[in-house]
Amino acid sequence: MSALRLGLAGAGRMGRNHLRAIAGSDVVKVTAIAEPVGSTRNLLQGAESALYGSVDDMLDTAPIDAVLVCVPSDLHLTTIKRLVDAHMPTLCEKPVGVAAGEAREAAALIDAAGLPFQVGFWRRFVPSLMRLRERIARGELGEIYAVANFQWDGAPPEANFRAHSGGIFVDMGVHEFDQTRWLVQQEFGAITSMASGIAGERWPGDPESAHAIAELSGGTTAVVSLGRRFPLGDFLGALREQAESFARHVRGESLQGASAHDAAAALGAAERAAAQMTGP
Amino acid sequence: MSALRLGLAGAGRMGRNHLRAIAGSDVVKVTAIAEPVGSTRNLLQGAESALYGSVDDMLDTAPIDAVLVCVPSDLHLTTIKRLVDAHMPTLCEKPVGVAAGEAREAAALIDAAGLPFQVGFWRRFVPSLMRLRERIARGELGEIYAVANFQWDGAPPEANFRAHSGGIFVDMGVHEFDQTRWLVQQEFGAITSMASGIAGERWPGDPESAHAIAELSGGTTAVVSLGRRFPLGDFLGALREQAESFARHVRGESLQGASAHDAAAALGAAERAAAQMTGP
Amino acid sequence: MSALRLGLAGAGRMGRNHLRAIAGSDVVKVTAIAEPVGSTRNLLQGAESALYGSVDDMLDTAPIDAVLVCVPSDLHLTTIKRLVDAHMPTLCEKPVGVAAGEAREAAALIDAAGLPFQVGFWRRFVPSLMRLRERIARGELGEIYAVANFQWDGAPPEANFRAHSGGIFVDMGVHEFDQTRWLVQQEFGAITSMASGIAGERWPGDPESAHAIAELSGGTTAVVSLGRRFPLGDFLGALREQAESFARHVRGESLQGASAHDAAAALGAAERAAAQMTGP
Amino acid sequence: MSALRLGLAGAGRMGRNHLRAIAGSDVVKVTAIAEPVGSTRNLLQGAESALYGSVDDMLDTAPIDAVLVCVPSDLHLTTIKRLVDAHMPTLCEKPVGVAAGEAREAAALIDAAGLPFQVGFWRRFVPSLMRLRERIARGELGEIYAVANFQWDGAPPEANFRAHSGGIFVDMGVHEFDQTRWLVQQEFGAITSMASGIAGERWPGDPESAHAIAELSGGTTAVVSLGRRFPLGDFLGALREQAESFARHVRGESLQGASAHDAAAALGAAERAAAQMTGP
Repeated sequence: MSALRLGLAGAGRMGRNHLRAIAGSDVVKVTAIAEPVGSTRNLLQGAESALYGSVDDMLDTAPIDAVLVCVPSDLHLTTIKRLVDAHMPTLCEKPVGVAAGEAREAAALIDAAGLPFQVGFWRRFVPSLMRLRERIARGELGEIYAVANFQWDGAPPEANFRAHSGGIFVDMGVHEFDQTRWLVQQEFGAITSMASGIAGERWPGDPESAHAIAELSGGTTAVVSLGRRFPLGDFLGALREQAESFARHVRGESLQGASAHDAAAALGAAERAAAQMTGP
Repeated sequence: MSALRLGLAGAGRMGRNHLRAIAGSDVVKVTAIAEPVGSTRNLLQGAESALYGSVDDMLDTAPIDAVLVCVPSDLHLTTIKRLVDAHMPTLCEKPVGVAAGEAREAAALIDAAGLPFQVGFWRRFVPSLMRLRERIARGELGEIYAVANFQWDGAPPEANFRAHSGGIFVDMGVHEFDQTRWLVQQEFGAITSMASGIAGERWPGDPESAHAIAELSGGTTAVVSLGRRFPLGDFLGALREQAESFARHVRGESLQGASAHDAAAALGAAERAAAQMTGP
Repeated sequence: MSALRLGLAGAGRMGRNHLRAIAGSDVVKVTAIAEPVGSTRNLLQGAESALYGSVDDMLDTAPIDAVLVCVPSDLHLTTIKRLVDAHMPTLCEKPVGVAAGEAREAAALIDAAGLPFQVGFWRRFVPSLMRLRERIARGELGEIYAVANFQWDGAPPEANFRAHSGGIFVDMGVHEFDQTRWLVQQEFGAITSMASGIAGERWPGDPESAHAIAELSGGTTAVVSLGRRFPLGDFLGALREQAESFARHVRGESLQGASAHDAAAALGAAERAAAQMTGP
Repeated sequence: MSALRLGLAGAGRMGRNHLRAIAGSDVVKVTAIAEPVGSTRNLLQGAESALYGSVDDMLDTAPIDAVLVCVPSDLHLTTIKRLVDAHMPTLCEKPVGVAAGEAREAAALIDAAGLPFQVGFWRRFVPSLMRLRERIARGELGEIYAVANFQWDGAPPEANFRAHSGGIFVDMGVHEFDQTRWLVQQEFGAITSMASGIAGERWPGDPESAHAIAELSGGTTAVVSLGRRFPLGDFLGALREQAESFARHVRGESLQGASAHDAAAALGAAERAAAQMTGP
């Protein structure tokens, strides 16, 4: 069977992630891309997809079977309306709007049109989470007292993204809310939440960290911990510190890093390990 | 004090990592780059560094205080000789050649010239490892029975890199050997090692995984585990699986991923969490 | 200097933990024990401490310098009053009563009497937590967005203990609340909490799992996750399954576990490893 | 079907673990125990099993269907010979002797007699390891480059046990060797090993830590890391430190631990969390 021809609406950071991911697929191909920003379109020159400046242009011209929506969240609903009018099956990035009312309106339109539609909650396709869900469903883990969800990014997104994201619970938290519903197959009841008072960069209405606890319909408790600044190991920081330490050494301070003799000792051990190596 | 002016010799993958790392420094600046490959030089157009096609050209013309060597490992010694002749302080990427004899020759030349020289064993500048070393030195952890070092990359390097790398114990293992010597301040004694017989891609003389155990001069045992294929969570794989599942849904199979109603439920929870949020 | 002579009030589970811990100390000795339950006193026959049936008897007779209080939580205040009357320095197990009012009353009495007093929040003496606190205080970790505390026991305590414990937030949670205050040196503000609806054993007013999120005075958020059923690896379960599998084998089913030939193969590998072993 | 009646030969530490584990079983019961040490037998008075001073006495008198062997390792073979003579099905603790030759002799006798026999490699009954083995067998993890086994006890066993254990690779290592064979279903090839030169307590021929690397027949490498001193969190140590800190406070030093006011603050937070708690 020939591959499904996808049109990509929006080639920002997430759109380009989809491009890289789909590149290896025989089942689906991105054959057209609609992206309004010229400099972003230029990055994509030479790709095998036809490039358009708007979704309308793409829909008018490109021979596509379905659309993958990666426009900013606050344009999700408008874009979905246009695609429903065009009777186009749609795979839409989360969160499908920046308010539940927008998602509900989208759901009603799609139901009425009877169109195939899927939301980009990609964690539902992570093998280890799929196995966890099966084990919970089979009762292998007993009844579930609590699901604790931690999502901590290394650094906040760019200001432009943040302005259209709907805030930390909409932008980041929907992943945890969907994941929890899906893992334990229960619906959310009462929710309480708290914003952190710490921030590297104040952003009105969008704290850099927030926490929620929630009741689920089957008695399980959900904990959601969100944060925007949790840098992991800092390889580049170590490289910079190394270069600065070298600069101090050039200017007369004693050597803090490794010497050429250290290199010879490490290579000597490597060489002996390699020379002595047995194996098939 | 003005920043130390560095010339970068070699702007491959590791050289560009140094560029990004040093970009944030007031202590050291890369003011010149020597890179023989034209397409790589083109990537660097517009940077603030002067570009040269060879180390010789850079040394002849650029006003630099020191050189950062990121050429292929099998060119380390030749490059160092040239820099010693030019009386140029040098920060050289590991492993300083592909054989201990090369590193020893480099060490002798540098000692004779009395030049500042440092090797890029950057782990010596990782704060958590520095703290660990201090605690071991103070005896806080008692005597150390064993140091277990695991370095497993997600995927093998490109063929071109692998051809000049010296093999798995030289390319990857020198980090573990240097780290172990540095952490416990002991020298290596007897070493035995074994190659794995498993390989996604056979490469003569360079197994994809190898292990060593070694005695250290203070009685500690070192374990070194190296591997080239240890992919962590596969975000792009989940995105592709999601797109393929959507393609099957478009062609009539039932929905496997999240529906618009799921999106509305997740957004509904997010919205309630955000509305209810307390905080400073 | 001679060891401080401690009288132990209450030799239940926690009291006996203190006995084992203090046994190795030259600085403090338990020289007397008051325990009302005869069968528990019998367990302690032969120990070097004098045994008494009540705190009053111990205070009247035993030559002690201070008292360690391990009576049930709902007797903490009464016992402390008696010790303050006797001008006895006191180390009291947490939580110092089952209500904050009791702890405040105790604090006022102790302050008025000017007696040395300490509460058994032993986490303040765990070296890794002490180091963490120092690093936070020095600013090494930046400002702290959140402190997440998880305390999940393997199985609920006995019914008799549970009846006097004050409920999950008093019995278990005070450790997390004290730990958080102490680690970040901030005071608690607003708190919300939720009980789990899951329970292996319903206990009125004392859910088996509960969660709280709280604001702290410096802007940090605290998450507290408590649970009474989180069994770790089940060694005894594996032994039982092994014995039952053997029983099925005796009755004719095929062998599921290891055979004598497997034992010979494992011993053969062990023997070769031992024979080949090098080392100092 | 009635429970299988087991006679336990040897009621030392491991024998008593089996007693506790089997206590919950309907499939198998320990109805007789042979233990030569009188003080150990006294510990078992009141249990439902008949007590004997020797295996011979138990075999002569007790109505049992099979025997569970937990005698010291260097008595395994002698005991098995006696049980084969008595045509008694046997579940034998690992390692079935202290030399591969003993295990092979046992295997030959058992095969000749056609008796049900199983070895106590209990890890084969740990659910998470069973799942791991299935996933490896199904190819879900690809080909396995390496299996790394770490077994580090908190403290060395008692001198009496150590004297009969066969040394670290026989006593501890057979678990790793059997586990590895069983997980990847490959046989051991070349093995090299090294003893650590560090020891809290020197013991001739039995280092406190040793490491091995080994080739397996399918190309996988095994790493085995064994050690006898790896204490985890030290709860009793914190309790002792707390008591000693209190002793110093009684003698005039400032308070290092928690005060009664700290207890009131923690209880206050607990109380507010409990009061505010929502839930089913």
